[in-house]
Amino acid sequence: MKRADAIALDRADPLARLRERFALPEGVLYFDGNSLGPLAVGVADRIRDVITHEWGNDLIHSWNTNNWMASPLRVGDRIARLIGANPGEVIVGDSTSVQLYKLLVAALRLRPDRSVIVTEAGNFPTDSYIVDSVAAQFGATIRRVRAGDLTSSLDEQVAVVCLTHINYRTGAMHDLAAMTAATQACGALMLWDLAHSAGAVPVDLAGEGVDLAVGCGYKFLNGGPGAPAFAFVATRWHAALDQPITGWLGHAAPFAMADGYEPAPGIARLTVGTPSILAVLALEAALEAFDDVALTEVRAKSVALSELMIDQVRGDARLAAFELASPADPERRGSQVCFAHDQAYPISRALSARGVVADYREPRILRFGITPLYMRFVDVFDAVEHLAQVVANDEWTDPTYAERAAVT
Amino acid sequence: MKRADAIALDRADPLARLRERFALPEGVLYFDGNSLGPLAVGVADRIRDVITHEWGNDLIHSWNTNNWMASPLRVGDRIARLIGANPGEVIVGDSTSVQLYKLLVAALRLRPDRSVIVTEAGNFPTDSYIVDSVAAQFGATIRRVRAGDLTSSLDEQVAVVCLTHINYRTGAMHDLAAMTAATQACGALMLWDLAHSAGAVPVDLAGEGVDLAVGCGYKFLNGGPGAPAFAFVATRWHAALDQPITGWLGHAAPFAMADGYEPAPGIARLTVGTPSILAVLALEAALEAFDDVALTEVRAKSVALSELMIDQVRGDARLAAFELASPADPERRGSQVCFAHDQAYPISRALSARGVVADYREPRILRFGITPLYMRFVDVFDAVEHLAQVVANDEWTDPTYAERAAVT
Repeated sequence: MKRADAIALDRADPLARLRERFALPEGVLYFDGNSLGPLAVGVADRIRDVITHEWGNDLIHSWNTNNWMASPLRVGDRIARLIGANPGEVIVGDSTSVQLYKLLVAALRLRPDRSVIVTEAGNFPTDSYIVDSVAAQFGATIRRVRAGDLTSSLDEQVAVVCLTHINYRTGAMHDLAAMTAATQACGALMLWDLAHSAGAVPVDLAGEGVDLAVGCGYKFLNGGPGAPAFAFVATRWHAALDQPITGWLGHAAPFAMADGYEPAPGIARLTVGTPSILAVLALEAALEAFDDVALTEVRAKSVALSELMIDQVRGDARLAAFELASPADPERRGSQVCFAHDQAYPISRALSARGVVADYREPRILRFGITPLYMRFVDVFDAVEHLAQVVANDEWTDPTYAERAAVT
Repeated sequence: MKRADAIALDRADPLARLRERFALPEGVLYFDGNSLGPLAVGVADRIRDVITHEWGNDLIHSWNTNNWMASPLRVGDRIARLIGANPGEVIVGDSTSVQLYKLLVAALRLRPDRSVIVTEAGNFPTDSYIVDSVAAQFGATIRRVRAGDLTSSLDEQVAVVCLTHINYRTGAMHDLAAMTAATQACGALMLWDLAHSAGAVPVDLAGEGVDLAVGCGYKFLNGGPGAPAFAFVATRWHAALDQPITGWLGHAAPFAMADGYEPAPGIARLTVGTPSILAVLALEAALEAFDDVALTEVRAKSVALSELMIDQVRGDARLAAFELASPADPERRGSQVCFAHDQAYPISRALSARGVVADYREPRILRFGITPLYMRFVDVFDAVEHLAQVVANDEWTDPTYAERAAVT
């Protein structure tokens, strides 16, 4: 493929119109939208208005008059559309880790006669650590198995299966429908972490009958650094859901200031303390970029961009040392393309110096997030050419690139 | 006292210069800064810069280049000065409820041979509910006693005493030093909730040897709606502190993505997931209003404002039905003045219609938050006159004032 061919693909791209919804810096090819989504147009003005008018002028009244109180559920409903949930099944707040903790404990309580948590070896650290902590606290046993052994690890002792839909390192994607069905066939609950799925691949939580899920607000949803997470609970579990962090705002009548905790009806019982309204409303404004966008179209473009990247790397003799670390089959791959290389870290730094922002992940992964709302085919083409030049020119050998930054 | 006398007090007030640090709306007398602190000058511009430049332009690099990664500890150190903590003993993040949950579990784990939690009847709901939840989870027993019975409830079975320093309803303030000493004399740990203390009354956590504390970012610290909370852990407990929500960012080396959880050294182990950077940096900007301010001066003015309010209400025959619900002794009262009245709710609404914003708290409390950084003596004088007119004119009998708003 020539560069002109990539430009032609952009001309024919029905999603090309979405790029103007983002305030992207000049001269940057951003392949890290799966780590921190970029700024959507409108967010800065919206938050300025929230700060100066809603907070500054209306003060405490805004909880009522500007509907701050309803915002975690309202923004949850906006995310619900992107993950195939019903209205009232999603709420935003806290971090993904805190949401996962609440739902994992709640899952064990929904299955009091079972005591095994099944999870995947190599899951994202927070998921892994929280499974460890909850298991130790509740006397549960962990079965930590490889992806291929998940189904055979299921039996009637399993209370909950806790998996990340798309692996953060490799982009390997579970078959959500099949895994959910297998889990429920043995009587266990299915808890998905959708951190790398929401806003990137179509997910049909209600259609597949998923029990519980959490996800991240600051990756493909572009909610800003440390944006609130979301939690999903299927309606059938709302009444019985018993989560451990019983903060006052999850009470059925918080301002009654009653002596005993009575959980709010519905998903609102997952609220703990007062959510950051600046953060919730920044996420809400960012989600407008998904207005009138079909996730099936997003997915189709994601696959096309990813296939282009893989083809270009494979077809370039300068890049022969890069081994595809993501599944080659697009059906099994999320919205990222990863390559393994012994010098992945300094190469990622050298790329960054050229304005190509990609992620490094231990131990030797160069990770390109594929974000169809604002990514062009020519961006992929150019990024691979930059990568080839970094290698061909030995640019990565600059000793400053070997020094580890705090965040890698 | 005449209005001119109040104005004279303002002229002589050494803290009067601080009022210009806040963007207060015209025509509002704001006595709700202990529920949602007002907007400090500089916050809106700072957050606009964070959004457009740090997030929008610098993107993922900001974790390093704009020091986002260090911000929870940096802002914690800023709060440390206000509560008598040492540098490195305070961190911001999560909500007060989540912080309390973590520290209460950690406290029980630090006293594995003890199983009683002592707390106060009528504590703020979130504290009460979380004590209930943690006790049930860990098989602990709760002794929920009246303030006067706290000391006599202590014995060698008590693992932790969990109290709110200043009662949210009445403003009654515990003797922090005496209670901490009594708690520790029986070998228990002292966990204070400083929600209504931080930024309002001088607290000397290190000097009094307090073990653990949490507090709120959006009341007297003015961090914005749902601002991150803070947590304090005395340095001597850092190494042993074992909190249950083991998110990846509390790991000693988060980006090593190691299989097992190893807590970060120091207070950083209280971090769970990625904090909202917009919320953390809004709190940081708001805390600049405390620059060069001595809490002893703040406290002296708070007492003077409160005494003025009490005197004016007591001296006004129109307000004879208002019963002081806060301690009359300023030494036992936080930075609020509460009156009990059967019609407190509609009266609070009628006051609000006159631009006097105070809080209602169940069952019959009218609560005036006293916030010396921006409150004038004449504001107190005027608020009491408004209150007297609301009563004298029967304004509160307007039927719309009886309807409950979602947030009261």
